[in-house]
Parts: sequence; structure tokens; C-alpha cells
Amino acid sequence: MKLNRKDILGIQELSVEEINLILETADSFIEVSTREIKKVPTLRGKTVINLFYEASTRTRTSFEIAGKRLGADTINISASTSSVVKGETLIDTARNLEAMNPDVIVIRHAAAGAPHMLAGLLRQSIINAGDGAHEHPTQALLDLMTIRAKKGGIAGLKVAIVGDIAHSRVARSNIHGLTKMGAAVIVAGPATMIPRGIEKMGVVVHTQIEEAIREADIIMMLRIQTEREQQNIFPSLREYAQYFSLNRGNIGLARKDVLIMHPGPMNRGVEISPDIADGPHSIILDQVTNGVAVRMALLYLLTGGVS
Amino acid sequence: MKLNRKDILGIQELSVEEINLILETADSFIEVSTREIKKVPTLRGKTVINLFYEASTRTRTSFEIAGKRLGADTINISASTSSVVKGETLIDTARNLEAMNPDVIVIRHAAAGAPHMLAGLLRQSIINAGDGAHEHPTQALLDLMTIRAKKGGIAGLKVAIVGDIAHSRVARSNIHGLTKMGAAVIVAGPATMIPRGIEKMGVVVHTQIEEAIREADIIMMLRIQTEREQQNIFPSLREYAQYFSLNRGNIGLARKDVLIMHPGPMNRGVEISPDIADGPHSIILDQVTNGVAVRMALLYLLTGGVS
Amino acid sequence: MKLNRKDILGIQELSVEEINLILETADSFIEVSTREIKKVPTLRGKTVINLFYEASTRTRTSFEIAGKRLGADTINISASTSSVVKGETLIDTARNLEAMNPDVIVIRHAAAGAPHMLAGLLRQSIINAGDGAHEHPTQALLDLMTIRAKKGGIAGLKVAIVGDIAHSRVARSNIHGLTKMGAAVIVAGPATMIPRGIEKMGVVVHTQIEEAIREADIIMMLRIQTEREQQNIFPSLREYAQYFSLNRGNIGLARKDVLIMHPGPMNRGVEISPDIADGPHSIILDQVTNGVAVRMALLYLLTGGVS
Repeated sequence: MKLNRKDILGIQELSVEEINLILETADSFIEVSTREIKKVPTLRGKTVINLFYEASTRTRTSFEIAGKRLGADTINISASTSSVVKGETLIDTARNLEAMNPDVIVIRHAAAGAPHMLAGLLRQSIINAGDGAHEHPTQALLDLMTIRAKKGGIAGLKVAIVGDIAHSRVARSNIHGLTKMGAAVIVAGPATMIPRGIEKMGVVVHTQIEEAIREADIIMMLRIQTEREQQNIFPSLREYAQYFSLNRGNIGLARKDVLIMHPGPMNRGVEISPDIADGPHSIILDQVTNGVAVRMALLYLLTGGVS
Repeated sequence: MKLNRKDILGIQELSVEEINLILETADSFIEVSTREIKKVPTLRGKTVINLFYEASTRTRTSFEIAGKRLGADTINISASTSSVVKGETLIDTARNLEAMNPDVIVIRHAAAGAPHMLAGLLRQSIINAGDGAHEHPTQALLDLMTIRAKKGGIAGLKVAIVGDIAHSRVARSNIHGLTKMGAAVIVAGPATMIPRGIEKMGVVVHTQIEEAIREADIIMMLRIQTEREQQNIFPSLREYAQYFSLNRGNIGLARKDVLIMHPGPMNRGVEISPDIADGPHSIILDQVTNGVAVRMALLYLLTGGVS
Repeated sequence: MKLNRKDILGIQELSVEEINLILETADSFIEVSTREIKKVPTLRGKTVINLFYEASTRTRTSFEIAGKRLGADTINISASTSSVVKGETLIDTARNLEAMNPDVIVIRHAAAGAPHMLAGLLRQSIINAGDGAHEHPTQALLDLMTIRAKKGGIAGLKVAIVGDIAHSRVARSNIHGLTKMGAAVIVAGPATMIPRGIEKMGVVVHTQIEEAIREADIIMMLRIQTEREQQNIFPSLREYAQYFSLNRGNIGLARKDVLIMHPGPMNRGVEISPDIADGPHSIILDQVTNGVAVRMALLYLLTGGVS
């Protein structure tokens, strides 16, 4: 099967069939990263540009490794070293990159919709690596892949997402993905962190973590953006941790075989206690491993690969 | 034919024959970037170092893509992450790089003459990717390539260069290149931006854009360095735009088939209006595409390639 | 022979046999960097991550070139562009990288012991590229390689190390390496820069450069960290240079065939005068060349290579 789509901008626009195609392709790539020679020549002669307007280790490195293991040439551009400092518009930067004939442009940008704008302008495939508080589709895909691998499927599972739902692109993409795939999604966080009308996305809202994680199959903790502490969204990190962290005191409310996820980077002791992060329920590092495979799958499918 | 030259430091020292050899070689490389597999093994096992002491997206990315499409290993060093912060001299940095046996060092530096100094010291080929207000030879070569491709030749054309002539390495390199190739060059800008004695370079000087672009075949707009606004070189960006921008109001003075060029990054609404930048006369993105081919040609010729 | 060791953390824990194995392997790689095609496919499909928490040109570039010439995929992560800005712990960053299945992680960190911590946690090979004031083993190995190549051996040589011994990881690693290999080591520097009890490492201490370098076969000058001038460790750079620089006035005290080394970056005119740095006794650039070969050897041996 082929992915009949030029870009990956968000989970919202993906069909269940497309998600399944991506996940199955990713499953087949997981093995490459465990070989003695972790490289296939599938994307030889293709150019992948990682255009990051926000700092990132995990996502940029994951895309770079994914590209290199497929044999692509990878080019990193980060805002701090780019023409951005000279005031060029995003559109001009993008059109310039287009003119150099890359095959895929991976973009992370603080402005929601930036990848969509590029997708409409450029002939190249665009992958959204996170746009403002909007979507982070490759994170959701790797989360879906991880859940599916660990639970054998997604439909019928109860998934709790806890934290700053309002400002989280990870939450938004996962809500789209999980509900499409048939999971029941519960979100929880301080009232100031729950966007109004979120129920329309098909989720149940709680303002206490205890209610949200009760009987959960999966708990997905979101990173609290500690730099927002000054903005009065929440009173203090200490108070946030007291009411919304996942820890030994409340994890027992979930199912015995609950799995704990976190997109990283973690604030240990804030949204998640270290013993939970490193404990037997945690599949946080599986998420990272699967991230490389999901990104290999997307690069492969967007450049015409058949699965 | 071979290029009998170790370095590319400026257009000033290139002969017409050498320029033609480079442009013809670049023409032959343009096709590589449009293939399904955009890669040839010509420079396999060669090491190209991009040593950038000034921020750049376009030029650094263009050189990196050029190197990778030829199969070279490319290494990026930017001033902000380098020994520069520890106070090492440029000469010591360069000699250290030399000792690691690269094949080509591409350097951008704020000091005019920095590439020449390295060329005299090191056994490796040096390519000047912009040195202060002195030269930017690869930009001029890609401009010449673009003009030649669009107009069938360069001799006899009337080319207007408009903007801060005094501080522009792009202007200097293009004046050398265009006059060598037989074009008539007119420069225009505020009096504070026209260097004294520039006529000796074989150009005609105007202080009004209207006179400069009259009957022009090519108009090359220079980026105004907005960070200089404070330095009283020009009164204000608004006033600059009023008198020296290329826009719908004055473009009619040029020839009907005039072509518009800009080295980027553009300040839309300052030196060029958006409708002109994106209009039918603009060949600004062709310049970018040809930039990769010109840089492939130089890397190829400097490492011993025959064309 | 195989190197039966997962990591290279310091010279302190290496045996003489291991050091000899590494140096001999490095000797065999020196030739690769002088070929027309400077590339072997030995590490094809391997992933090497350069994780640098401190700025570096020389060391990072040397590792990157070493990896690429062996055919490995190399990934650079620098603190300024990484999750570090988001406050993730080193351990979490490392575990995330581990989950992406690299083969070798090269780390430079301001905290002594950081590489050891990672080595204990991760299944991948860790190479210490400098940890605080503790060790810089690849620097010492390239120094040993250079001395051996120039002198035909190390045992019995008299080596003077001059400068800020207390804060120098280069000094510590070299003291371990040189004494293990049978050289006599003399250290010299201002009293505030000589750590108490250093004699227990098997070295002779002097507080005057003249005594230290007398009859020396090798003089290794350390970079003075000029940023420490404010900390009252030494009165002033001028005074430091007056008493502890190597220059035409004192070099005559050493043997006629003395060799001068410096790990770089040099402060010319502070710890070493320019005519000595560039003079006939200097083997400073040989050190750099050998650095690539030593790093190739380590990458090769740690990924299972047999020599």
C-alpha cells in the first residue's frame, strides 16, 4: 500500500487506514535499528532537511538518525544559526530550501499552522515536528505504535492524559489519534490547563488526577512547562506536584497492568516521581525507540515507499 | 579542461576562461539535483569543512547539499560553537583543521581577506563564502550562471545593481564578474552607500534608482542591512524604501523582459516590494537552485575534476 | 587482538597492553587520512553520537571526521541546542539516546565523572572527550602516539608538563599515560596551580619552568585558562607569561632535540611564544593529525574491531 499524501501535518487529518499503514510500516523498520549494520539504502540520494525553530534533542536526533539509517542525506538548520537572525520570513526561508531540491522538510515552529503554510506553498513533503500548541503528529504516532505493541491493540483501552492539556501539542495529537483508533480518552489537569470545549474532541474531563487514572490502561503524563510558572497558570511547581504528579501514592488507582508514558523531557519530581518514571510500568524509553522507527516509516512512505 | 587554481577567493582574480569553465561545469551538475537519486560518488572519501564565522542558512546549506550530493563528507563548524569562544586565532584554527586532512575548506568571515590569508597558509583548497565587504565569489558565479541560462549570454546586457554598494560583497563580486563577461553595469544607491572611485571598476553610477534601471535587462537588488539603520548611513528604512525600493511604480522603466535578482535574504517592503519579488520577472529562486550547482562545480573542479 | 573494554573513560584504568593496542591500531589508521579516497567502510551502519556539553572545535571535529572516515553515521548534539535548555537531567538525555540504538556515545561534560556515570548506565560504548578537570584520555593517547612516532618509544624519556596542573584534565591523563609507559614526568607551574599531593602520581614537582624543562626530551605546555584571571589563581596574564611561558630565552635549557607539544587552543604570547609554537621543535600539528587516527582506532576497537 502507498500513502497517498504529500505531507504529515497532524493526526486530525489522517484516516484510520493511514494510521494503520504508518504503524505497520514502522513495525517493519524497528528491526533495522537492532541489526549489526543499522542501515538500508532505501533513501539513498534523498535529502531530508530538519528545520528547527525551537530547541530539541530528542525529536531532531530521532529524525536525523531515521534519515541516516535509510541512507538519506540529512541537513540540520536551527533557528539560532540561520537567516532568521537576519529577519527573513519563514516563507522566504522555505522557498529557498525548496529551490535546493530537498525531498522532505521536517519543521518545528512555535507558531501553530507553520507546517501547513509550508505544505501549501512547497512541492516537497512537509513533516510537522511540532507546531506551537497545535499538533505533534510524529509523537502521537510513536505513542500509538508503542501502545499497540505493548497491548496488542488500541481499541477499547482507557487512556488518561494528565497535565497542561491546553498548551500541549502532544495531548492534542494523541487525543485525535487515540479516539480515532477507538480508545477512551480521559484528560485531567488544573482548571486553568483544560481548554474550554475540549469535550467536543470526544474526551472525558476531570480536574483531579485520581479520577482520571482510575482503572486506566495507559497513563500519559505531560511535561509541565516550568518556564510558565511565572505566568500564574498554576500557583507553584510544588503545589502542581502535590496535586497532579503521578507517584506511588496514586498509581495504585490504575489497573494493575497500567503502562506509563511521557513524551519527555521529564521534570522528575514535578509531573512524575522518579520511581514511577523508572519503574516496571514505564514504557517511556520504548516510546523513544519507536520514535526512530515511526520517523523512518514516514520518510519512507512520503518519498514513495510501498508497504 | 581542468581548473588550474587551488582556491576560489574572488571573482577579481578569475579569467573569463575560468569563469566559463566553472559555469559550464555547473550547467552539467544542475541535472543531478533533479534526479530521483540526487547523488553521484564523485567526491567519495573527500572531506569538506564549512567554517562559518557569520550566521548563514542559504550559503552554508547550499554548500552542505552540494558536498553531500557529490558524496563528500561534510563537516560544519560555526563560530558560536567553536574554539573562537576560547580566543584561538583564525590562523591556529585553520592550521588545526589542515592537520586533519580535509580537501576543501569553505570559509565565511567578517574580516575582508580572511580567506586569502588561509589560502596562503594551507595546502587545502579554500573557497571564500563571503569575507566582510570584500567578495562573495560563489554568489556572483551563481548569478552569472542564472543570467546566462535565462538570457543565453551575458555580453552586451545592461545590469543595474541597486542598494548599499559600499558595504556589499555581492555587489563587488558581481561588478567584477559582469564587467569581465562583457555586461554594462550601472550601480545606484544613496550617496552614502556609493564608494568613492567605484567608476574605476568600470561601472556607471547613479544616485536615483529610476535612472539606473532605465532600459535594464537585469536588476539586481541588494539586501539593505537593517541593523545599520542606527549608524546614520541612511535616514530610515521607510525613507530608503520610498526612494530606492524596486516596486510596481518604477519597474516599468526597465525593459519589458527585465529579470529581477536578489541574493537574499530579502527585506520585503524595504528594498523590494513583495509583488516584484514574487512576480513574473523574478528569477530569485533560480539563483538559489543554481547556487547548489555552482558549488558542486567548484568542489568538483578544486578536487581535480575535469570538465 | 581485541580491546576487552566497553568504554574509554580515562587513562588511569588502561593497562600498558591496552594502550599499546590502541596506539598500534591508530598507527595503522594514520594512512587512511592521506589516501586519495579517505574512507573505509569499517563502521558502515554504526551510529556515533557526539554529545558535547562544552564548546569545542578540535575534539568534536576530530571525532566527527574519524567517524565519517570509517563510514559511520555521526550525530552532533551540543548543549546549547539541546534539551538541556529545558532542564532535562544528563541521565535522562543519555537514556533517551540509548533508546535510539547508537553504537558509541562520545561525551564532553564540565562535571568530572559524567562519562563514568553514563558508562555504568548505558549498554553503549562511552568515550570520555573531557570531563571537568578529571581526564581527557583521547588527548593523552594522541600525545603518546605522537611521542612514540617521533622518538621511537616512550620509556626513559623526560617529559615536562608546564602550566595549570591543578585544573588540567590533559595533564592528569598524560601523567597517568606517561608514567605507565615508563617516562619520567616533571610538572611545573605557579604554586596555586600545583595540586597538593601530586607527587603521589609519580611526578617530580617544580615551581620554576627553568628547572622543569632542563634536559627535557618533551615539553608539554598547557593552555592557561585566561577566563580564570579574575579568580586570583595567578596575578595577571602578563606576569604568568613572564615566569611560565616557553620562549626563546628558556628553551635552550632543554635538550637540543626537545619536542614541544600543546593540546590547543594556544594562547600565543601567554604560555608559549609564537616563534616556539611555530618553530622546528614544535610537533603541535602532528598531535592534531594523530588525534583523528587515535579516535578512529577507538571507534574501531570499541565496536568490536580486531587489530
